[in-house]
Amino acid sequence: MKTYSRPRVAIVGATGAVGSTMLSILEERNFPATDVRLIASSRSAGKITGTRWGDVEVEDLETADPAGVDIALFSAGGARSKVYAPRFVEAGATVIDNSSAFRMDDDVPLVVANVNDDAVAENQGIIANPNCTTMTIMMAAGPLHRAAGMRTMIATSYQSVSGSGKTGMDQLQREIEHFMGDLDGLVSGGWKDPGGDLYARPIGYNVLPLAGSITDVGYTDEEWKLVNETRKILRRDSIAVEPTCVRVPVMVGHGIAASMWFDRAVDLDEAVAVLGGAPGVQLWDDTNVPTPLDSAGIDDVLIGRLRETVGHLGGVSLFAIGDNLRKGAALNAVELAELLLI
Amino acid sequence: MKTYSRPRVAIVGATGAVGSTMLSILEERNFPATDVRLIASSRSAGKITGTRWGDVEVEDLETADPAGVDIALFSAGGARSKVYAPRFVEAGATVIDNSSAFRMDDDVPLVVANVNDDAVAENQGIIANPNCTTMTIMMAAGPLHRAAGMRTMIATSYQSVSGSGKTGMDQLQREIEHFMGDLDGLVSGGWKDPGGDLYARPIGYNVLPLAGSITDVGYTDEEWKLVNETRKILRRDSIAVEPTCVRVPVMVGHGIAASMWFDRAVDLDEAVAVLGGAPGVQLWDDTNVPTPLDSAGIDDVLIGRLRETVGHLGGVSLFAIGDNLRKGAALNAVELAELLLI
Repeated sequence: MKTYSRPRVAIVGATGAVGSTMLSILEERNFPATDVRLIASSRSAGKITGTRWGDVEVEDLETADPAGVDIALFSAGGARSKVYAPRFVEAGATVIDNSSAFRMDDDVPLVVANVNDDAVAENQGIIANPNCTTMTIMMAAGPLHRAAGMRTMIATSYQSVSGSGKTGMDQLQREIEHFMGDLDGLVSGGWKDPGGDLYARPIGYNVLPLAGSITDVGYTDEEWKLVNETRKILRRDSIAVEPTCVRVPVMVGHGIAASMWFDRAVDLDEAVAVLGGAPGVQLWDDTNVPTPLDSAGIDDVLIGRLRETVGHLGGVSLFAIGDNLRKGAALNAVELAELLLI
Repeated sequence: MKTYSRPRVAIVGATGAVGSTMLSILEERNFPATDVRLIASSRSAGKITGTRWGDVEVEDLETADPAGVDIALFSAGGARSKVYAPRFVEAGATVIDNSSAFRMDDDVPLVVANVNDDAVAENQGIIANPNCTTMTIMMAAGPLHRAAGMRTMIATSYQSVSGSGKTGMDQLQREIEHFMGDLDGLVSGGWKDPGGDLYARPIGYNVLPLAGSITDVGYTDEEWKLVNETRKILRRDSIAVEPTCVRVPVMVGHGIAASMWFDRAVDLDEAVAVLGGAPGVQLWDDTNVPTPLDSAGIDDVLIGRLRETVGHLGGVSLFAIGDNLRKGAALNAVELAELLLI
């Protein structure tokens, strides 16, 4: 793999919710870039953004020349990644791609920093950033799998609207304003539709048991990501994953309730020792239950409600929460970029 | 058991969120009461409420004489049920109690109408209404258990704030108003605490992976209800239940994501046939995913996202939603009262 000491960095999709977080995380972490290029759609091109590397004019992705870029952080959607990421690789860059475009490709490592860092070395130009929900639960599942070998994971998500970008946050806010004058309607069922077609059903004061689109045998693409990415990241195709992905009226922070069983019984003491010592994780005890609001704006994934299973014994249940814009997306991408530094 | 043709009815806890719903459901369903007495704490005593049975003055529970009451619907909290329900039974009434006070007593049937109606006949004066979350998922689990014998249920809840009564709805509303002026804080983590001690953490724009209080081995009382009440209602102590109870910023409507396995494999066709024909249930297909907002104000429990499991094969996963004030509480109590009619 290519490594860098003072790389030239480009952010593709720089003006989106994840892209702008990528920039601020590069700044916060004093990433040793010589310069940072900001690339987005033609709509944002020409906009000037102040950065640690000086004022930067946003470039149009369609016309931007990838020559000279060492590390390109892509968060511009799968369709754009499919077209432009190979062009950046051809021009010599290593691409860290936040979309689902290449995640399951055999020659593309899928990496959660602090979980399977060694896989980065297998890259042939593209490294994939996992799905935000998968990423968060992997911060708990990875260390436990390494200790005891994961066999089964039942994962049920509570995904914030910023998983759909700024559009999701705007939609939630509009719906909250729409519904808050009609509390009686929320109770009686006489509520009026808030409009908008971002989600299949309203999300304000509601829960939508559908994240992503239904694809195969009744599961959404988002749910299949949990199944397939978990197996790839943990390098065990036999893990039985039962996924349910649900959108909740939260701005930032994806939560996942998970029950896990392993090759052998794992008791609470062992789980506390493993997760209490895991990098990038804060283990909170039951006097202090973590919530999405607590995860917003921080790098660590919060784990709470850790307990032994009571149905089929020998497993553990827990609730993991991560800022989906940070660890779930932008932070992990920057952490992967750091793994390319010498 | 005692049966009635034209019973005299009392609602104890008549001014609460569930109690007032009990009254309106008795009215909607033309319950053949000769009269209805409304009983509450001294705070509400003396208040006049218009009903189908004329204007009724709210009586003080401490001084109300239970004589003459045939059916008493209790929803005044476990502590009051423990003291007053036996007094009503002694005075000749059959008590249908919505609290957890007697649910696990051997001589008290725990009944979900349309699931285990026959258990009503075992009552010795008190019939218990199950927990609202358990009730909702039992509307799906009961018919499937009868068809194939349930072995395992992993249940993860999305519980609305009206599960904590009117106080819960007021608290959510206050917090939504508090947070909605501070969207940047919700994203950056710089939000300010909204105050209030109803819940351990904020609930507005948030998800609280803790419903009820932690009791034993890391599980909340609410989670133990799901374990123990499921086993009692389905009459099978060996069912392995893995519960996680979570509060969400929704006014009315409890959702439960559940994966279930049985004595034998159940495929999608069979699950559709069983649940499509189950009384009190609406099975929605994937073109029309049900949400808590859809459940508000209606009697049926909505079931969506029905699919075969993809991890450990042979089971089914689904999402069930019920109006926690109606089927989750008041409606079921009235349905149980109807089972006492001749």
